[in-house]
Amino acid sequence: MPIDFRTEPGRWRHWRLEVAGRVATLSMDVDPAGGIFPDCELKLNSYDLGVDIELADAVQRLRFEHPEVGAVVLRSAKPGIFCAGANIRMLGRASHAHKVNFCKFTNETRLAIEEAADVSGQPWLAAVAAPAAGGGYELALACAHIMLIDDRRATVALPEVPLLGVLPATGGLTRLTDKRLVRRDRADVFCTTEEGVRGQRALDWALVDELVPPSKWEDAVAARAAALAATSDRPAGARGIALTPLQRSIAGDTISWPHLTVTLDRPGRRAIFLLRGPEGVPGDVPGDVPGDVPGDAHGDAHGEGAAFWPLAAARALDDAILHLRVNEPELGLWVLRTAGDPALVAAADAAIAAGDWLAREIRLFWRRVLKRLDVSSRSLVALIEPGSCFAGTLAELAFAADRCLMHAGSDGNAPATLRLDAANFGACPMGNGLTRLETRFLGAPAAVAAARAAIGQTLDAEAAEALGLVTEAVDPIDWDDAVRLLLDERASFSPDALSALEANLRFAGPETMETRIFGRLSAWQNWVFQRPSAVGEAGALRRYGSGTRPEFDPARV
Amino acid sequence: MPIDFRTEPGRWRHWRLEVAGRVATLSMDVDPAGGIFPDCELKLNSYDLGVDIELADAVQRLRFEHPEVGAVVLRSAKPGIFCAGANIRMLGRASHAHKVNFCKFTNETRLAIEEAADVSGQPWLAAVAAPAAGGGYELALACAHIMLIDDRRATVALPEVPLLGVLPATGGLTRLTDKRLVRRDRADVFCTTEEGVRGQRALDWALVDELVPPSKWEDAVAARAAALAATSDRPAGARGIALTPLQRSIAGDTISWPHLTVTLDRPGRRAIFLLRGPEGVPGDVPGDVPGDVPGDAHGDAHGEGAAFWPLAAARALDDAILHLRVNEPELGLWVLRTAGDPALVAAADAAIAAGDWLAREIRLFWRRVLKRLDVSSRSLVALIEPGSCFAGTLAELAFAADRCLMHAGSDGNAPATLRLDAANFGACPMGNGLTRLETRFLGAPAAVAAARAAIGQTLDAEAAEALGLVTEAVDPIDWDDAVRLLLDERASFSPDALSALEANLRFAGPETMETRIFGRLSAWQNWVFQRPSAVGEAGALRRYGSGTRPEFDPARV
Repeated sequence: MPIDFRTEPGRWRHWRLEVAGRVATLSMDVDPAGGIFPDCELKLNSYDLGVDIELADAVQRLRFEHPEVGAVVLRSAKPGIFCAGANIRMLGRASHAHKVNFCKFTNETRLAIEEAADVSGQPWLAAVAAPAAGGGYELALACAHIMLIDDRRATVALPEVPLLGVLPATGGLTRLTDKRLVRRDRADVFCTTEEGVRGQRALDWALVDELVPPSKWEDAVAARAAALAATSDRPAGARGIALTPLQRSIAGDTISWPHLTVTLDRPGRRAIFLLRGPEGVPGDVPGDVPGDVPGDAHGDAHGEGAAFWPLAAARALDDAILHLRVNEPELGLWVLRTAGDPALVAAADAAIAAGDWLAREIRLFWRRVLKRLDVSSRSLVALIEPGSCFAGTLAELAFAADRCLMHAGSDGNAPATLRLDAANFGACPMGNGLTRLETRFLGAPAAVAAARAAIGQTLDAEAAEALGLVTEAVDPIDWDDAVRLLLDERASFSPDALSALEANLRFAGPETMETRIFGRLSAWQNWVFQRPSAVGEAGALRRYGSGTRPEFDPARV
Repeated sequence: MPIDFRTEPGRWRHWRLEVAGRVATLSMDVDPAGGIFPDCELKLNSYDLGVDIELADAVQRLRFEHPEVGAVVLRSAKPGIFCAGANIRMLGRASHAHKVNFCKFTNETRLAIEEAADVSGQPWLAAVAAPAAGGGYELALACAHIMLIDDRRATVALPEVPLLGVLPATGGLTRLTDKRLVRRDRADVFCTTEEGVRGQRALDWALVDELVPPSKWEDAVAARAAALAATSDRPAGARGIALTPLQRSIAGDTISWPHLTVTLDRPGRRAIFLLRGPEGVPGDVPGDVPGDVPGDAHGDAHGEGAAFWPLAAARALDDAILHLRVNEPELGLWVLRTAGDPALVAAADAAIAAGDWLAREIRLFWRRVLKRLDVSSRSLVALIEPGSCFAGTLAELAFAADRCLMHAGSDGNAPATLRLDAANFGACPMGNGLTRLETRFLGAPAAVAAARAAIGQTLDAEAAEALGLVTEAVDPIDWDDAVRLLLDERASFSPDALSALEANLRFAGPETMETRIFGRLSAWQNWVFQRPSAVGEAGALRRYGSGTRPEFDPARV
């Protein structure tokens, strides 16, 4: 059974969302029997990937469906526990790959929560009225403000090291040192104290932002939420758009979404993405939503809603990335292709750049989707072919790729072109805070300026190569061979070595909390997730709850 | 047989150093039979830890023994090969821990080569007249300038991914993207091209700095070396000091160096460092060098040479760190203690701060030693006790520690004190470019300023705790229990989880090429070094040279 990342509130099993004016309340109430592994009971608001998929859905819907919401209160609906973190039994049984994917997705979701506060006027408030442990506290750490009830039971804790022999790896360590600026020796004490910290010490050490006596708890949470909402620039009177169910059909090795078809080439160990621009193209699959008509880009985002091309295409691409990451691990290379009219893509970019809250959300969604691509452990090869539409936002696909080949001819079709627009110069920064072009031309601002000067031009292969925008312009007569050679060669390398190589080469330049979470923190956790002390038969993840102490390899590496 | 990091030119088997005026030439000529593993023949200037220990010795001696050298030419004495990189047979046979230690040490040595150029007026020039592959090219990448002979045979290459299924992990990837600013797609092509790149393309892609026709090679190298040397601020007429053999005695579980004793507590899984300040203290071990007399700090660095306390203590500490890292992996916690007169340590700092080239070298050596501590995968606990001398440079030991307990009394001895001096505010930055205090107080410049205002004061436990300089001030009556509890608890945790935790908590704030090498790059390589595709029976490191292709797990993680 493939894991499906599509969900909707009516199908949620673990969360409840209530909206009252400017404030939404998201309550965690994990169904113990609702885990994605049949025999891992999700006690004490512990979570697995399925729980987090619903959380990500909530984050997304709050952004699109609730423009009026200026603050989100995150709380537990269970008495006696805020959240116990990732389910340990699940971690003990899951494959290495599943654990790594699970951590990546949960990290992306938490970063989306932070992005909501930072650039979307929707700060989250963690109302911690009971123990928040491990991933539970890390969830709170992703919020803009953490309130802790001042009683003897409510604690925050990162017990992973003493209890499980693994790291808190949903960004906890990075957020302790770099977001909350907790002194490193205190962070060390905290992370090695199984029972956690409560009350005044939690406040003194900056583990929480506010400590509230039980008698004043509800009033204080409401007041704080209202105060946060008052700082929001989201339009109180606006109406959201419905994220209608995302249509997807899987037919053999072809997966179709509106505007996107992914073909699975299993012998070649690759997946070929074909993203279609705003205008329909020959071969467009049935099942496309009604909004997919010529001229969409000039359409009205509010009127078309989820069918509006920029939003529909982003949703399709996002779902495809998530689906392939988890369900198709052996397809180690993603080929990125597009088809359509570059001018319409540029027009769509312009419409979004000039827009309101909804346009902002669509732009931020593209930013997140492209970041997902950046951190996907798949080789990315973009092919700029005749008839393609690598323009503006879609040109970012080419810049996200590890390699980009550009066809130097027309092949009887429209000639292969690359087109830059303003969206390539700030709308979609990478996790390192730079645009993909700035990262590409690190230390060479003149090259970025030259690219900027080419905005709006239709660049052929020679021009694109001269500007350094593609890896190689390929003569039409050599195209098929060049592509086949590249794809076949890539498939012959060690998949692990490629994952590690790409994780290093993709992120030149400055580091941010985000790049550190996916670079340093995740890499170390992935290392730990292979070590006998954690995952061996006598390791801590396996022995957890057994009543038998784990056995550790005493040697330091 | 423990690995000994002490060596000297008379014992080198793999390198030759010639000094001619302002230019030194270091020639690599690896003895195939001189490997540290008996059956790993070091063909084609491939190297193992033993070869690198000699290289590190050369770097160090060039700094101290040759103030007149303003440039170093690195070349191969073997025809047809510059350097083939790390010996693959060794990598295939070595334990995971040995591989990780090997990479860490080689990275430290390459960073020392860069430091020589950046702050010590001794830039290195790589004269690549034959293939430089893998670690061989990474060695060149650490140099300030890379010259490549323009013939059909001389190439630079990072063939690890296609050939071995591992990363180039001696900083190569990081230096490609962040030092040489190689465009990421070109870096991707380069790192997946087994045969490497030569000639004009190597220059065009910034893989080398200069391309020279064979007929002009020797002249060009000499001219470039002279030009580099002309930029040096090192004193042409000065005389160096001899790094005389470092005395060390191992007696059971006690290891003694001048000014340093390390006691191995095997049941407790810890090593206790006792570093003695400039003045002799009771219990000083026999075998100390003659310079170790009261008042040393006021002595003459040039007159005392290697016996000068600041230098002798740094050498001892450096050797101890290296020895314990590789030879005592099961001692997972290092307790850092000092004994002596804080005022004399401060006086030593002052003497170095005001000094000439030699003082600069001593200061930079301390910087490197402390950085070694920062990246050591051992829990570090500093104990500030009565009679200790955590002052100035030695106070950095406390700030490098994961925890620092301070005794709040005198215990019938001199009371426990902490003393800051100017050396704590810039002389010894961490790899992240910040001082340890700036890292400790990230985002809190007022706390750094308050510490700076306390320079020269004798801080007792209460004052040190108030300034945030120690983790905890401990009442004398609780001291023994507090120490025992902390050390025993630490020994009960998963050593792997602690390594990963500490690698994350120690480096808050900005990242540099250096922190990325030890964080992102090394963590990924350590991950790869555990994967079946690399180290399994059918993995690439095992199958290398066997004529049989390796088998890879096709799944991406």
